[in-house]
Amino acid sequence: MDFLKDSNYINQISIECVIFGYEEQTLKVLISKLNFSGDFYALQGGFITQDEDIDVAAKRILLERTGLNDIYLNQFEVFGKANRKRKEFIDKLIEANSAAYDKNIKNSDKYLWFTNRFISIGYYALVDIQKIHPKKSEIDASIEWHNVHSIPDLIMDHDEIFKHALHHLKEDIDKKFNAFNLLPETFTIKEVQDIYETIFEREYVRTNFQKKILEMNVLERLEKKFTGAKNKAPYLYKIKI
Amino acid sequence: MDFLKDSNYINQISIECVIFGYEEQTLKVLISKLNFSGDFYALQGGFITQDEDIDVAAKRILLERTGLNDIYLNQFEVFGKANRKRKEFIDKLIEANSAAYDKNIKNSDKYLWFTNRFISIGYYALVDIQKIHPKKSEIDASIEWHNVHSIPDLIMDHDEIFKHALHHLKEDIDKKFNAFNLLPETFTIKEVQDIYETIFEREYVRTNFQKKILEMNVLERLEKKFTGAKNKAPYLYKIKI
Repeated sequence: MDFLKDSNYINQISIECVIFGYEEQTLKVLISKLNFSGDFYALQGGFITQDEDIDVAAKRILLERTGLNDIYLNQFEVFGKANRKRKEFIDKLIEANSAAYDKNIKNSDKYLWFTNRFISIGYYALVDIQKIHPKKSEIDASIEWHNVHSIPDLIMDHDEIFKHALHHLKEDIDKKFNAFNLLPETFTIKEVQDIYETIFEREYVRTNFQKKILEMNVLERLEKKFTGAKNKAPYLYKIKI
Repeated sequence: MDFLKDSNYINQISIECVIFGYEEQTLKVLISKLNFSGDFYALQGGFITQDEDIDVAAKRILLERTGLNDIYLNQFEVFGKANRKRKEFIDKLIEANSAAYDKNIKNSDKYLWFTNRFISIGYYALVDIQKIHPKKSEIDASIEWHNVHSIPDLIMDHDEIFKHALHHLKEDIDKKFNAFNLLPETFTIKEVQDIYETIFEREYVRTNFQKKILEMNVLERLEKKFTGAKNKAPYLYKIKI
């Protein structure tokens, strides 16, 4: 538990990352099973050092867990209820791990800061599952993708954080087209439509969808995609810079 | 400076409220001139006590400054750059106030926490200027409404916080119709259009605007407004619950 001892962290503020992944028209989320007895599942979180911008801290946490650099991360909400304390969760953890776990942690000064109230800044990312290899941290027994419709119960208020992140993802993608982490350099409108249909769990009429996306004015049309059948070839697009 | 001594505040986290006001088709923002020599202008900020939800703290700050309760406040962004420290600002303040101000504040332990790096959670509100009487706090020399196009230079990164708040206000109002603090219980579409034209600084074609607003599906149509001229009377609306 060496990471808990870093006295250079800002006390009482943490970051939770909700890492959404897209693969074969399914939307998933990355969940850690904690490395203790008992079923403790959690989002990927971390702390901010005294000399680190909060956005830099969030990117570092994402990099540590996914190996991905330079990913669009969206700060979406702060979770700051007064009863948001780790103590209850840690007491449960200790109870479930009385043999394996150092019981003295409970009263040890050097860990006490960790049981305080924490205000947590939520970030989400949307990544291509095929491009990343999730890495467990020292507190994870495993780290896995779960379909957003079948995630286990999460610790503390992580369920709420996940639900709010999904809500913001939907709002944002409809407004800002922030699905660009998922797209290759050039792509067809059909590829974009697949992503939207997966996230919103609905079908779109092709012509309506094309109109909606082009009206966002974020795509630049390139040549037609070579498919052999010249007349039916779809146009390729890229993101406008 | 008694408020600086409250040891029950969470250290290194603050709240900044950007309070927008609407009056006679003008959009304004509430700015404090600090009670020191020198031109120090600031947004309305404050701290979070250990047993207070962050949303409750933001509402308390708004109540203290405006007398308004139960106002829709929108948490819009966290400002968390590593170089976001009060020390530089306080040093400037002390320099400009060497006679009037206790120079020892600089090295006094009880004020040191206040010179740390602070991560600030931004909230904005949009209120009816005619309904409120801004109240200065103990650090304000005055507190006044300024047209959003002619605000003075603000301390620290308050200019950036103000600009981001205005950006979010525009984005949100177009999506969530969160202008309801400004409207009476029943109102005409023309009253809504006036607010939108002020905030977006553009004119709308009446019929297009009516269509856009009604498509948001947040308004309930009531009887016609009695004006004497029956045929031209506009409908009254109220916000759907």
